[in-house]
Amino acid sequence: MQLSENKERPASAWRNRLHEIVFESETLSGRIFDLLIIWLILLSLLVVTLESVREIREDYGRALFYTEWFFTILFSIEYLLRLMAVRKPLRYALGFYGLVDLLAILPTYISLLVPGTQYLLSIRILRLLRIFRILKLSEYISEGKIITSALVASRRKISVFLVSILAIVTIVGATMYVIEGEENGFTSIPTSIYWAIVTLTTVGYGDLSPKTGLGKTLASIVMILGYAIIAVPTGIVTAELTRKAKQLSTQVCPECHAHDHDADAVFCKFCSSKL
Amino acid sequence: MQLSENKERPASAWRNRLHEIVFESETLSGRIFDLLIIWLILLSLLVVTLESVREIREDYGRALFYTEWFFTILFSIEYLLRLMAVRKPLRYALGFYGLVDLLAILPTYISLLVPGTQYLLSIRILRLLRIFRILKLSEYISEGKIITSALVASRRKISVFLVSILAIVTIVGATMYVIEGEENGFTSIPTSIYWAIVTLTTVGYGDLSPKTGLGKTLASIVMILGYAIIAVPTGIVTAELTRKAKQLSTQVCPECHAHDHDADAVFCKFCSSKL
Amino acid sequence: MQLSENKERPASAWRNRLHEIVFESETLSGRIFDLLIIWLILLSLLVVTLESVREIREDYGRALFYTEWFFTILFSIEYLLRLMAVRKPLRYALGFYGLVDLLAILPTYISLLVPGTQYLLSIRILRLLRIFRILKLSEYISEGKIITSALVASRRKISVFLVSILAIVTIVGATMYVIEGEENGFTSIPTSIYWAIVTLTTVGYGDLSPKTGLGKTLASIVMILGYAIIAVPTGIVTAELTRKAKQLSTQVCPECHAHDHDADAVFCKFCSSKL
Amino acid sequence: MQLSENKERPASAWRNRLHEIVFESETLSGRIFDLLIIWLILLSLLVVTLESVREIREDYGRALFYTEWFFTILFSIEYLLRLMAVRKPLRYALGFYGLVDLLAILPTYISLLVPGTQYLLSIRILRLLRIFRILKLSEYISEGKIITSALVASRRKISVFLVSILAIVTIVGATMYVIEGEENGFTSIPTSIYWAIVTLTTVGYGDLSPKTGLGKTLASIVMILGYAIIAVPTGIVTAELTRKAKQLSTQVCPECHAHDHDADAVFCKFCSSKL
Repeated sequence: MQLSENKERPASAWRNRLHEIVFESETLSGRIFDLLIIWLILLSLLVVTLESVREIREDYGRALFYTEWFFTILFSIEYLLRLMAVRKPLRYALGFYGLVDLLAILPTYISLLVPGTQYLLSIRILRLLRIFRILKLSEYISEGKIITSALVASRRKISVFLVSILAIVTIVGATMYVIEGEENGFTSIPTSIYWAIVTLTTVGYGDLSPKTGLGKTLASIVMILGYAIIAVPTGIVTAELTRKAKQLSTQVCPECHAHDHDADAVFCKFCSSKL
Repeated sequence: MQLSENKERPASAWRNRLHEIVFESETLSGRIFDLLIIWLILLSLLVVTLESVREIREDYGRALFYTEWFFTILFSIEYLLRLMAVRKPLRYALGFYGLVDLLAILPTYISLLVPGTQYLLSIRILRLLRIFRILKLSEYISEGKIITSALVASRRKISVFLVSILAIVTIVGATMYVIEGEENGFTSIPTSIYWAIVTLTTVGYGDLSPKTGLGKTLASIVMILGYAIIAVPTGIVTAELTRKAKQLSTQVCPECHAHDHDADAVFCKFCSSKL
Repeated sequence: MQLSENKERPASAWRNRLHEIVFESETLSGRIFDLLIIWLILLSLLVVTLESVREIREDYGRALFYTEWFFTILFSIEYLLRLMAVRKPLRYALGFYGLVDLLAILPTYISLLVPGTQYLLSIRILRLLRIFRILKLSEYISEGKIITSALVASRRKISVFLVSILAIVTIVGATMYVIEGEENGFTSIPTSIYWAIVTLTTVGYGDLSPKTGLGKTLASIVMILGYAIIAVPTGIVTAELTRKAKQLSTQVCPECHAHDHDADAVFCKFCSSKL
Repeated sequence: MQLSENKERPASAWRNRLHEIVFESETLSGRIFDLLIIWLILLSLLVVTLESVREIREDYGRALFYTEWFFTILFSIEYLLRLMAVRKPLRYALGFYGLVDLLAILPTYISLLVPGTQYLLSIRILRLLRIFRILKLSEYISEGKIITSALVASRRKISVFLVSILAIVTIVGATMYVIEGEENGFTSIPTSIYWAIVTLTTVGYGDLSPKTGLGKTLASIVMILGYAIIAVPTGIVTAELTRKAKQLSTQVCPECHAHDHDADAVFCKFCSSKL
């Protein structure tokens, strides 16, 4: 379409105004628009949730159906407005928020063809991530960034950990399939791997549990293993968060070479020379 | 009433004496009063608990009923005494301990209208929080304060974490509702969200568990996710407690009155004067 | 008896010799005696365990019964030897190991009066704690001491935490009893408190689980609470262990006041002066 | 055979070439060989997994059977090639990868005698550990080494912890056997120990759960214990990882060759010379 051909359109007055309203929350109208959208999202989530309850659906199904379409059309219009408000619509459309905005309306349209998919509308909750930005909860955003960056910094350690987990559950699952067999509910290797995950993560539904002595012994080992190795991701994230908390200052005193000064220190705490 | 109109009543001798007895534990009579109340609370909790056991209720129901009223009337008198003993009764009544003291007697009265509510009397256990104060367990209080302050200091990180958990269980719950459907027990989105919480927190009752292959796969991902992200709150609290353990110094600079110096600081980090 | 009257008996040659054999493992005979006892303990544990399995008991019950008495008589003789080998028998008899040694033989004798108690003989496993001492596993002992001292150092924080847990489960249990009621399995407040503990600790047997919407909501809150507050004991112990690891040296350089020197440092790492 | 008699064979051109292909991935042919093997392993795992699903086995059993033999023969040839490619075949055959390579083909041959053992082929997943080496994922390897070395460094603490766990579950298991007895499902001490492990590790299947009041009380204590002592392994690993994160410096003193200097050290802590 024209939108994709003409990515760098000159800023025009109406687009700037539209951008202010739908994307920003500095102006009064922008703030009202944002709060309105937040409430619409919450209401639409409530409608989808209510519709899934059989008793409510049987009584108010028609009303909920129309409300849902009402919300979807509103959000579709909002989506088009957002596309028009930015100078590079494609970049918006393919970005995280753009995709979430699209996925938040698609299921209703698809449900015309495949009934039931409208329940996937609950992805709309992700749109609430904007709530942090809009309500100027900058302190929360920075806290979220600390957590995220700690996770990102330890992503390799976590990957190694997850791959090890996968290898363990595959071997344990296959071994349990051989030990317990189909007569005890371990009907296939995938099912046994599912059991191994349920056990290693200490969830323990109990829909499947070992019956033979050998199976119980192996299960016991897996449980103690799962109980102990939870220490690994915890240790990884904690060490990273502790390190981050310390990295506030890397200043070293020019006089006495002492380190470990606080981020707000002006003078060396050991020899009183200026930092 | 008069109480609220006349909040700042002049201290009178009998009120001071009453205050010493019911609120403080410096004097012998105050100490005896406090220990008496503690034992009454524990006994009344025992009575409520025993009454809930069917066999005991059938045999001793009448006796337990009267004992309960006996305790409630005693605690009502104590509540009135406390109201009279303070100069600002409203401030006490609306404070934490005042509300707990009130909630600890209300259920018995309400049970006259709505049978069964008397079991809510177990809120009386919160009154035992005073045990720490009364028994001069100051070291325990300060330890409790360290934990509390670590939780308060990381409240924003914990909020971000909880909001993320809620978003995850909503999306996972709705998706499982679509995948498993009502025939496998996932009868509505709220029920599916409940299942997602049971799984993510690794509780795993097993009253609901996925039956389809796709459902088991999604469940496995949620379990491993729940197993791994428990590292996040743990890391947050640990990093905070570790930081606190280092911040033991309560020195204040004699020159510039700055505080927050490290335990090993020799000079003020802000104005370089000797600490 | 004579033993208690005459606590401070003069050391005699045969007692010293006996002490060397039954209490120490420096000499060859002492070492052989200790290893023999370890193997007897392990064998007797095996016998008790085997006897509890119905199929084995039905086939070999008589043989196992005699074997058990054989072990008990051997351990009784050993207990008497230990009593004779020390100069202050009462101090040994009332100490930790003395009580364990006694409890490790009593159940067999009691089982003559109360059948079934012989299974409590598994307390014999505690006698294996000596294995560390005997096998000169000094490094393991010191590691154990680090863990123990970290737990002891944080005992007050852990007490505060446990008391909070008990208060939470009592209130939640009573509330669930009111919400769910006896028709959903929550037959009494003690049962509901048991359910609350099962849920808060994320064990989740599933023998009891909420059926009503309100009950599931409260259960969800308890689960997320239990999932999050496990961070507290973890944080407490980790902070303590980290602190211990750092406390290797508290040296401060006499020249530049720098701290954070390793335990093995001879010169200041910042200004090269002798520590 | 000849292989073991002649361990140190002179390097020949063809062996070097073969070694480059099957063991290394510097050359193009070596890289192609490695990637081919990785895909064959993944495919063979898929075949074994599919074969375990009854519906698929009934429809495609014969095809899967032949495919499995095809993979096993391929891997057998690869194993022989590896034996031929190294100068010391016995050292390879008895090393970790050599044993895994052998165990990855043996089950198919054994399944001729003992049907069902072919599912143990899932040990082939361990062969994928080479994926890290081959794909030059050196950063992942070093991260894996940090985790592994942290676990190795705390192996004694972890052993002490595991032994304590075993002692606890043995005593608790035997006590529960006496309390609950066979009529409540605690049919033997091994079964009760299995229950104790399920409970202490907070897995909680629910296939076995206490029925009596005393049993529920003991179970509650075990749960809270299990909930609290998970802090111990977590604390151990975290303290170790935190310590490792600080030990980043690999400086060696130019004078006295001492290592283990802190990252911020300016002078050698042993001989005071400049680093």
